[in-house]
Amino acid sequence: MQQVQTLIHCSTLIPVNDRADKSERALTNHSIAIQDGRILDILPTSEAKQKYSSDINPQFNHHIVLPGLINTHTHAAMALLRGLANDLPLMEWLEKHIWPAEQKWVNEDFVQLGTQLAIAEMLRGGVTCFNDMYFYAENSAQEVTKSGMRAHIGMILLDFPTHYAKDIDEYFSKGLALHDQYKAHPLVKCAFAPHAPYTVSNPPLERVAVLANELELPVHIHLHETQDEISQSLDQYNVRPIQRLHDIGLINSSLVAVHMTHLEENEIDLLAENKANIVHCPQSNLKLASGFCPVQKLKEKNINVTIGTDSCASNDDLDMFSEMHTAALLAKGIANNAAALPAYEALRCATINAAIALGIDQETGSLEIGKSADLCVIDIDTLEAQPIFDPIGHLVYATQRSQVTDVWVAGKQLLSNRELLTLDQEEILNKTKDLNQKILN
Amino acid sequence: MQQVQTLIHCSTLIPVNDRADKSERALTNHSIAIQDGRILDILPTSEAKQKYSSDINPQFNHHIVLPGLINTHTHAAMALLRGLANDLPLMEWLEKHIWPAEQKWVNEDFVQLGTQLAIAEMLRGGVTCFNDMYFYAENSAQEVTKSGMRAHIGMILLDFPTHYAKDIDEYFSKGLALHDQYKAHPLVKCAFAPHAPYTVSNPPLERVAVLANELELPVHIHLHETQDEISQSLDQYNVRPIQRLHDIGLINSSLVAVHMTHLEENEIDLLAENKANIVHCPQSNLKLASGFCPVQKLKEKNINVTIGTDSCASNDDLDMFSEMHTAALLAKGIANNAAALPAYEALRCATINAAIALGIDQETGSLEIGKSADLCVIDIDTLEAQPIFDPIGHLVYATQRSQVTDVWVAGKQLLSNRELLTLDQEEILNKTKDLNQKILN
Repeated sequence: MQQVQTLIHCSTLIPVNDRADKSERALTNHSIAIQDGRILDILPTSEAKQKYSSDINPQFNHHIVLPGLINTHTHAAMALLRGLANDLPLMEWLEKHIWPAEQKWVNEDFVQLGTQLAIAEMLRGGVTCFNDMYFYAENSAQEVTKSGMRAHIGMILLDFPTHYAKDIDEYFSKGLALHDQYKAHPLVKCAFAPHAPYTVSNPPLERVAVLANELELPVHIHLHETQDEISQSLDQYNVRPIQRLHDIGLINSSLVAVHMTHLEENEIDLLAENKANIVHCPQSNLKLASGFCPVQKLKEKNINVTIGTDSCASNDDLDMFSEMHTAALLAKGIANNAAALPAYEALRCATINAAIALGIDQETGSLEIGKSADLCVIDIDTLEAQPIFDPIGHLVYATQRSQVTDVWVAGKQLLSNRELLTLDQEEILNKTKDLNQKILN
Repeated sequence: MQQVQTLIHCSTLIPVNDRADKSERALTNHSIAIQDGRILDILPTSEAKQKYSSDINPQFNHHIVLPGLINTHTHAAMALLRGLANDLPLMEWLEKHIWPAEQKWVNEDFVQLGTQLAIAEMLRGGVTCFNDMYFYAENSAQEVTKSGMRAHIGMILLDFPTHYAKDIDEYFSKGLALHDQYKAHPLVKCAFAPHAPYTVSNPPLERVAVLANELELPVHIHLHETQDEISQSLDQYNVRPIQRLHDIGLINSSLVAVHMTHLEENEIDLLAENKANIVHCPQSNLKLASGFCPVQKLKEKNINVTIGTDSCASNDDLDMFSEMHTAALLAKGIANNAAALPAYEALRCATINAAIALGIDQETGSLEIGKSADLCVIDIDTLEAQPIFDPIGHLVYATQRSQVTDVWVAGKQLLSNRELLTLDQEEILNKTKDLNQKILN
């Protein structure tokens, strides 16, 4: 008998493993042996009980165990602006509500509390990793580290000054200092995060292209969010935003392009040829009436598609189960094809595809021997979750994040029976309510 | 001090009251006095504590209280076929999966258990009333009565025989007997439920038109669900289904027409002129890639729009919070207008508009003096529900049904702190699992 750190027994296990044929997608009565934060073995429970022993050996008899979900686009700290303004188009929403509120309220404390709130919400929703873009990224990174979660922290870049940085050089220097600080961190990584084509001019984008290539970092950017953005680019640069970024050398496998609505066929081909990664944010796109990301067409060209929630200001949650569900439904409606983005593909968008986009697919995104033990557990012993004919369809079409009971990241348990183990739930809630009152008054 | 049956104190109360101006849509620190199952008074809590007393006086300090939601289209018993087949278009899904499963499994016991499961799920999701269409309607009606919930039970009609009825006359006679039995029931009513234009021929539809008029009952029918249905009608009848129903005299204020995709401008005008009611089922329409219901265009013509979940076989839940959310988001995307179906309108679709469609708006659908006390309570004291800037937007964009704590129907409490008071949760769950295993084997 080999003693291991943790031995998890699962009545149903969905590893999201590439090599699995269809019948192996959902395994019954399997166990996961975890050692040094990594998956040492995945095997039938009957064998596992002969081969391994552990002091920590939870038995999930009425549960589905799956890889932790990865939220590939959010602005975590904006959890404090959840639902600040509703039923408005992007530019009015940004210019009249979000930007003024940020100007007034966002500082280091705000980012600290907001990131805590977001991490708490995401962990309780089965999310083990997120790709962030926000001000005071140092504070976000600190909160991620304290929580034990995994994240890519954006080195945000904007042409205009904010409280966070006075000019583009300061954005760059703060971002690169952060990257330097975390480059050896096992869970926290940095990504370049030029905000959008309409807020970042060519010289800084050219600098990003050079540095991202040199440092082998992802480039996280809002791209083709609205038709207005495209029209404005045609006015100002005589090309559509994708072509402009291509001319700068940014359309490549490091690109993590968020939203991607109003795409033309030749743009889809360009994205496919250059192996760009697309983050689909269906709820945010719908709420702001930004347009539709043609997910089915992207999949047909083998483009890597992932899913993001966007921020709580436009969503109004960080719920990746709901986002997978919306993505799977909307893809069918838009493609006029009920087979578009089937459940297993939607689940891949929220797990392994996301890991590929962030360049961490050797580390996470699926449950496989050697990878980090990043996983979540869903309780299916409820009226709302029964009956179950197909566990994978069930995860995407019938599961709510309130069913998440337990979460591990890198072999460390962060959520146990819905209680957060590394964050003070009560304190975050109370501080959030206090700030809510201040902003309302 | 007047003694009342129940006195509910609410930190936030959203009555969905027509007369309220925008600032009165969400009331703070108000109380609801309930007597004989009806709302006797709604007033500030400070006054209520002077005027009324009650042995039952729950204090909802961190909650939103709102009218119970009304699900205007479902096939409740199909909760037992939740997610039976995924990622397939309507006719393949029906003909290869749903109809064969129904042929094999549906009987009185199935409908009894399935309706119990559906009622349990709906009550735990804040739904107090539903509009049903299924076989063995007698059994559904019985289960509704036992549970204390409110429902309209469909008198289902089909051209073809089933285990339930051998021919159209038997469908009619069973339905009319049911109506006779329940016509004086305070909570259970009947509606004519000819299944769809493609499954019911003209003579029975003509009979429905006459009887519905005479008995003043709603006519609940799937209509314009897919483009195929429309093409088939053009082939067979030389007119589109709406025109065919209009020629028969069915397009009027009794009509509760479900799905309504692929509508032309003149059809929208016809529906508006004749005051037909439309049930929008956004998640089912998306999942089966049936098409889009043009909600914003319908609203512009002042057509009464409501929301339904459809059955668990195509959704895969009976979650009206999620359905409101999807409806509000999808309307914006389809209309290319972020102001389409704003939160308050979406909430009205799931409450008062639904009561209007079913002809019970004098009885329920909003919290007003004299109406039945049908209400639900949402816990907002959680990390995922904070902060709150606009309670109505919050209900639609950020609330999950797992936050529902308490439900009353006609002044009787049916859910208390998420426990069902009139149904045996454990027994329903166990029987459902047993049947699930039988169907899988």
